[in-house]
Amino acid sequence: VAPNAPTHLQPRPIVLVSNRGPVSFELGDDGTPVARRGAGGLVSGLGPLLRDTGARWIAAAMTDGDRVAAARGTQSVEGFDVRLIDVDPEAFDLAYDEVANGALWFVHHGLFDATRTPSYGPGFRLAWDAYRQVNQAFADAVVADAPPDACVLVQDYHLTLLAPAVRAARPDLRLVHFAHTPFGGPDDLSRLPTAVATELLEGLAAHHACGFHCERWATRFTQSCDEVLGVGTAPPTFVAPLATDADDLAATVARPATVDATVELDARFGDRTRIVRVDRIELSKNLLRGFEAYDVLLAEHPEWRERVVFGAFVYPSRQGVPAYARYRAEVEAVIHEINDRWGTDTWTPIHAELDDDYPRSIAALRLADVVLVNPVRDGLNLVAKEAPLVNERDAVVVLSHEAGAWDEVGDATLGVNPFDVAETADALHRALSMSTDDRRQLALRLRQRVTARTPADWLADQRHAADR
Amino acid sequence: VAPNAPTHLQPRPIVLVSNRGPVSFELGDDGTPVARRGAGGLVSGLGPLLRDTGARWIAAAMTDGDRVAAARGTQSVEGFDVRLIDVDPEAFDLAYDEVANGALWFVHHGLFDATRTPSYGPGFRLAWDAYRQVNQAFADAVVADAPPDACVLVQDYHLTLLAPAVRAARPDLRLVHFAHTPFGGPDDLSRLPTAVATELLEGLAAHHACGFHCERWATRFTQSCDEVLGVGTAPPTFVAPLATDADDLAATVARPATVDATVELDARFGDRTRIVRVDRIELSKNLLRGFEAYDVLLAEHPEWRERVVFGAFVYPSRQGVPAYARYRAEVEAVIHEINDRWGTDTWTPIHAELDDDYPRSIAALRLADVVLVNPVRDGLNLVAKEAPLVNERDAVVVLSHEAGAWDEVGDATLGVNPFDVAETADALHRALSMSTDDRRQLALRLRQRVTARTPADWLADQRHAADR
Repeated sequence: VAPNAPTHLQPRPIVLVSNRGPVSFELGDDGTPVARRGAGGLVSGLGPLLRDTGARWIAAAMTDGDRVAAARGTQSVEGFDVRLIDVDPEAFDLAYDEVANGALWFVHHGLFDATRTPSYGPGFRLAWDAYRQVNQAFADAVVADAPPDACVLVQDYHLTLLAPAVRAARPDLRLVHFAHTPFGGPDDLSRLPTAVATELLEGLAAHHACGFHCERWATRFTQSCDEVLGVGTAPPTFVAPLATDADDLAATVARPATVDATVELDARFGDRTRIVRVDRIELSKNLLRGFEAYDVLLAEHPEWRERVVFGAFVYPSRQGVPAYARYRAEVEAVIHEINDRWGTDTWTPIHAELDDDYPRSIAALRLADVVLVNPVRDGLNLVAKEAPLVNERDAVVVLSHEAGAWDEVGDATLGVNPFDVAETADALHRALSMSTDDRRQLALRLRQRVTARTPADWLADQRHAADR
Repeated sequence: VAPNAPTHLQPRPIVLVSNRGPVSFELGDDGTPVARRGAGGLVSGLGPLLRDTGARWIAAAMTDGDRVAAARGTQSVEGFDVRLIDVDPEAFDLAYDEVANGALWFVHHGLFDATRTPSYGPGFRLAWDAYRQVNQAFADAVVADAPPDACVLVQDYHLTLLAPAVRAARPDLRLVHFAHTPFGGPDDLSRLPTAVATELLEGLAAHHACGFHCERWATRFTQSCDEVLGVGTAPPTFVAPLATDADDLAATVARPATVDATVELDARFGDRTRIVRVDRIELSKNLLRGFEAYDVLLAEHPEWRERVVFGAFVYPSRQGVPAYARYRAEVEAVIHEINDRWGTDTWTPIHAELDDDYPRSIAALRLADVVLVNPVRDGLNLVAKEAPLVNERDAVVVLSHEAGAWDEVGDATLGVNPFDVAETADALHRALSMSTDDRRQLALRLRQRVTARTPADWLADQRHAADR
């Protein structure tokens, strides 16, 4: 056995590859890049896992400071190595905006309005070439930087084409892809240019294993491979839902900003029963039907008027994209409409906050009696798993069947079909009407479900999949 | 063996069940209902098959004359019996507009804009009850009127819930359902209220066999049954694409109206090369991207400017539905935009006719050099099968992979991904540029494909499926 060969006593070194890195660099007064913890759901979940593991994280340089750091090579941060890649900014923007967020996000979430979108003109071919170029830059970095026999964990839909080149150049590596989004079935994939769908699936199929947050996305991936590439072409798949980081959440709850926000919100809500939602203003999150369901609730159950308040902590996302700006305007319009229809001198039915304030969002989840999580399709949905960890009022979660988290925690929530506004209104009424005992039991079961796994389990699942 | 039991010498009597009947009745001067041949693609295809067969056709009464005919019981027309059912008009409208065309059509064609539609409020529950009521009226008529041991052929998405009641009351009958639309996969079906999707699939699964125009729709149906009802719950399926009626088409070509339209259009097109499309202005037909592809063609291939004309014979459909009225406005706008951009004093790039004129549509297909058929999803698409039967210029058909007809005739056409405007523009260029020999060979093969089956084959397939 060669000295570097992995054994049970010597696990494979980890290389994590993602579009956005765990840190961002700012230039100090002397021009030295200084690391700052980055934002983003993926990063906050995975960063703490790698602390002091000697792992390597490869990501794209985003800022000027990042590019200086990229030029200086690998940086050591919090006990792991960060290697930033200086990708051509024009190619990066095309790949990120047009392909990843403009096409693949819509494909996997089933968000196209087929009558009109997508519509791939000649420009999309350039964008796809840019996406290839960015993926190739990542592949080159992995080939050059991965330690022998490493387990390479490639993250998400921005990076799907690395594997064929990496496997050809580095047969010692084990490659695992993990999709943090849902995965589209064959009819979704057919809404990509035909050659693009093929190349994308071939890229994914070249991994040693592909992981997903729930069984359904894994099934859709395999079905897409079967129909597009041929039966039996899909690589092994595994299901490994990401867990919430309970310690990190507890630290956030204890922060002064969260404590202050909690006091303030609690006073504002007063003795009214609280429905809360926390979401990006994102097409997949189903804000419009959520408010429509509340409207139906107030129409059909007059007993809740004046007695309930809907706290909507929803913050803009991708506002440069016209579809998102339009959606935000629609969300604001429906909020105003409902407040106009039902509001009184002493009661505003929807208390909406449209800016991103994480401590306040956590405060809202602490104070909720009902948490509404009704996406039309969602890879996992962390709110459904964070709410029970911070909530102090045995909140009932009303959860869409289309969230990946449904498989894990569905039986400890009230399930809804996200397209069925009448059913969602019924579920809100049931949640608001539930007895104290029933709420306590359901909340207890939900906390058991979400604490059953830790972020370390997710990482162990990746290692295990790599070695099978 | 009982005297009525079917044997090879004594085939089962046929009962055809469809929402719209093969004839419509007008009241004569003496108040007697007089039959007139009905409209609609399904009816024109199936009516001639049943002539002088003694078959029975059960359909809904639509007009005042129909209701008088319904009250008088079974009417004999062209050698078969017509039995109209007087359904409550309010229930009929709710079932037809809200459920069949407002929800099921969108489900099976994948046409929802998931961010906003569908959105099932409390009103949809009433509409679904109306759909059940209409289906029950049809079930009652079948139970009362079907001859012993009949083969009952239930047509299309308006009628999906009959089978459980009919089987319970009449175990002697064999029930076959045929879907003239595509069929949605599990992710499409999940965009119905959960209980509705289950009831719909249970209704279909209670048939002895379910038929589709192509393998893919049959597969999607089985996958939907597997995921919604449980693995192994789907009934046997069969694939039986409807064939065009060559005799009926030849008769239309010979009609004076068609001859006149041909002379007039030919003069108007002059010596320019002709791209033709014939379609309802229907969300699934993909008119917008078809015109966008033509726009790209003119931009990228200046050699075609002034030398080509796009004859668009597209006629309004379901104009009472806001989504269709909006779509029509968008179609008209893009036509104007392209004519403004590229038109000259002597050349209008798109010659559009927006009223329904069947002889003129057939004339246009006779005169085409290229026929564009690019639906986003289509059960079969009869234009792709009619064009080669009437065309006199070895027209090249540019055909969407998403039309059911693709499986039958795809290898005698130029295939396109309907969402890929750049690819569609390329295909139009290839079609326009093809050598005379290549065109002739392709057209010959296409005629062979579409004449390989006749309408009688379709009917034989239904009988065969019923007896398996």
